[in-house]
Amino acid sequence: MKVLIVGSIALDTIETPAGKVVEVLGGAAVYSSIACSFFSPVQMVGVVGDDFPQAHEKIFQRKKIDTAGLVKLPGKTFRWEGKYFADLNQRETLRTELNVFDRFSPDLPPSYRDTHYIFLANIHPSLQLKVLDQARKPKLVVCDTMNLWINTARKDLDRLIPRVDILMLNDEEARMLTGEYQLARAGGSLLKKGLLAVVIKRGEHGATVFHRQGVFFAPAYPLEDVKDPTGAGDSFAGGFIGYLAKSGKQTFPEIKRAAIYGSVLASFTVQEFSLKRLLQIKSSDINQRFREFKNLVSF
Amino acid sequence: MKVLIVGSIALDTIETPAGKVVEVLGGAAVYSSIACSFFSPVQMVGVVGDDFPQAHEKIFQRKKIDTAGLVKLPGKTFRWEGKYFADLNQRETLRTELNVFDRFSPDLPPSYRDTHYIFLANIHPSLQLKVLDQARKPKLVVCDTMNLWINTARKDLDRLIPRVDILMLNDEEARMLTGEYQLARAGGSLLKKGLLAVVIKRGEHGATVFHRQGVFFAPAYPLEDVKDPTGAGDSFAGGFIGYLAKSGKQTFPEIKRAAIYGSVLASFTVQEFSLKRLLQIKSSDINQRFREFKNLVSF
Repeated sequence: MKVLIVGSIALDTIETPAGKVVEVLGGAAVYSSIACSFFSPVQMVGVVGDDFPQAHEKIFQRKKIDTAGLVKLPGKTFRWEGKYFADLNQRETLRTELNVFDRFSPDLPPSYRDTHYIFLANIHPSLQLKVLDQARKPKLVVCDTMNLWINTARKDLDRLIPRVDILMLNDEEARMLTGEYQLARAGGSLLKKGLLAVVIKRGEHGATVFHRQGVFFAPAYPLEDVKDPTGAGDSFAGGFIGYLAKSGKQTFPEIKRAAIYGSVLASFTVQEFSLKRLLQIKSSDINQRFREFKNLVSF
Repeated sequence: MKVLIVGSIALDTIETPAGKVVEVLGGAAVYSSIACSFFSPVQMVGVVGDDFPQAHEKIFQRKKIDTAGLVKLPGKTFRWEGKYFADLNQRETLRTELNVFDRFSPDLPPSYRDTHYIFLANIHPSLQLKVLDQARKPKLVVCDTMNLWINTARKDLDRLIPRVDILMLNDEEARMLTGEYQLARAGGSLLKKGLLAVVIKRGEHGATVFHRQGVFFAPAYPLEDVKDPTGAGDSFAGGFIGYLAKSGKQTFPEIKRAAIYGSVLASFTVQEFSLKRLLQIKSSDINQRFREFKNLVSF
């Protein structure tokens, strides 16, 4: 089944202890779409400027990503610059240039409107709502959000969540959104809003899935060679919804496997800067690492 | 098989968002001994003052903990006071009164000297070495340490580690001890010192076991009712070595199961202040939560 993905498309400048890259391909929609494409065909919604390199568009073509929903506006593409500290768990945003992203208003092409699987990457909740308003047959809506919207767009977020099936956010955001410090309580409190599941992302510590039927823990793979954590959460989300769309089932066991596939994709992303590693791997690499995840937690 | 445990015995004053307790039973040797006692008989080594309540000694008797190595000195028992912040991951030490602990020099009674399983809880590495010097037939030595000794007693620690089989420390300490920021590298670097395994404790995020044969991840149980994290790491260690002493095997699969039993015991400890919950549970509670851990990570 096809997956509709909406979110940012960016040119990132990133410094980590492993090096620095300038204006490389990035953005939540990009990481999640490439990760998703290993499992299911992607329909991408986003905006770029007229400076967006053709080489990047070719990557979308190579991954058979439908770009009918990719709008090109006059002006510059969204740019983000960040620096990671030595332990890679914390980062500082040095510069955010919205550019054409400031005028982004997602419009679904007719061919996207009946798509069942939808991933709303982290953008303003009013834009996420606008996408859902145009979707005629949503079957599974996965939504990512962040502290900024919890603080500044709470009303939109409160209107959005009842229309979402699976919410993704990090531990700090889950605490902020619920006022509960203990993650198990935060997860339980979010489920009560009518969600099928909540995925609390914990960076290098993995992710916890709170589902109506129970709790599941997906570890992060213990890598020796993390170069750049950018895009890990979005790669997780892309692998997660891509697997569910391929499976066609939304049972708890399938959601568990989806979380592991998400972790697998995230583990590849962080091994190189930008999309480099994600564009090197094959399905066989994904399946092998899936088995390694099994070994990591089996007892 | 018996387990020799050496470490602190304390009267703790603890404040957490769930409340405050004053001069309750605590200390690394106490938490680990009680946790261990569910699996294997314990021989405890430690020191208390003449103010140590008899009710606490009765707890040791009830748990059939051998206290031949428990020395009572004139003066006051070691006291620690701490306060946890809202998310329970960080704490502040408000007061440390060493009292009789300042004169502690572990002397093994003859009946302890042939014990095969030894847990060196977190005390000065020179004292941990002194215990090993008196042990005639160590088969498995598990050792806990902390940042203070890494910074101030590095020479003793470097002499100690080659005589240890399994080292336990937290993620920050593993980074400090090895100079490696990525935990997988830190774990690998510590294994090269000749250890059988390294357990990197990550608090509410679980623990990672680096073993010569591979890596294993033991999650923390997602509890809704954490009241007091004090003693979690020591309970983990006690359950861990207690299970291995009962099993008699030190294979990687047994070490994995030991890490899960350690996590099970830690998960009970944090549900109440001091030893309260550990003193309520039975083996059947432990076995049930062990199965819940299996569900938490199986996919």
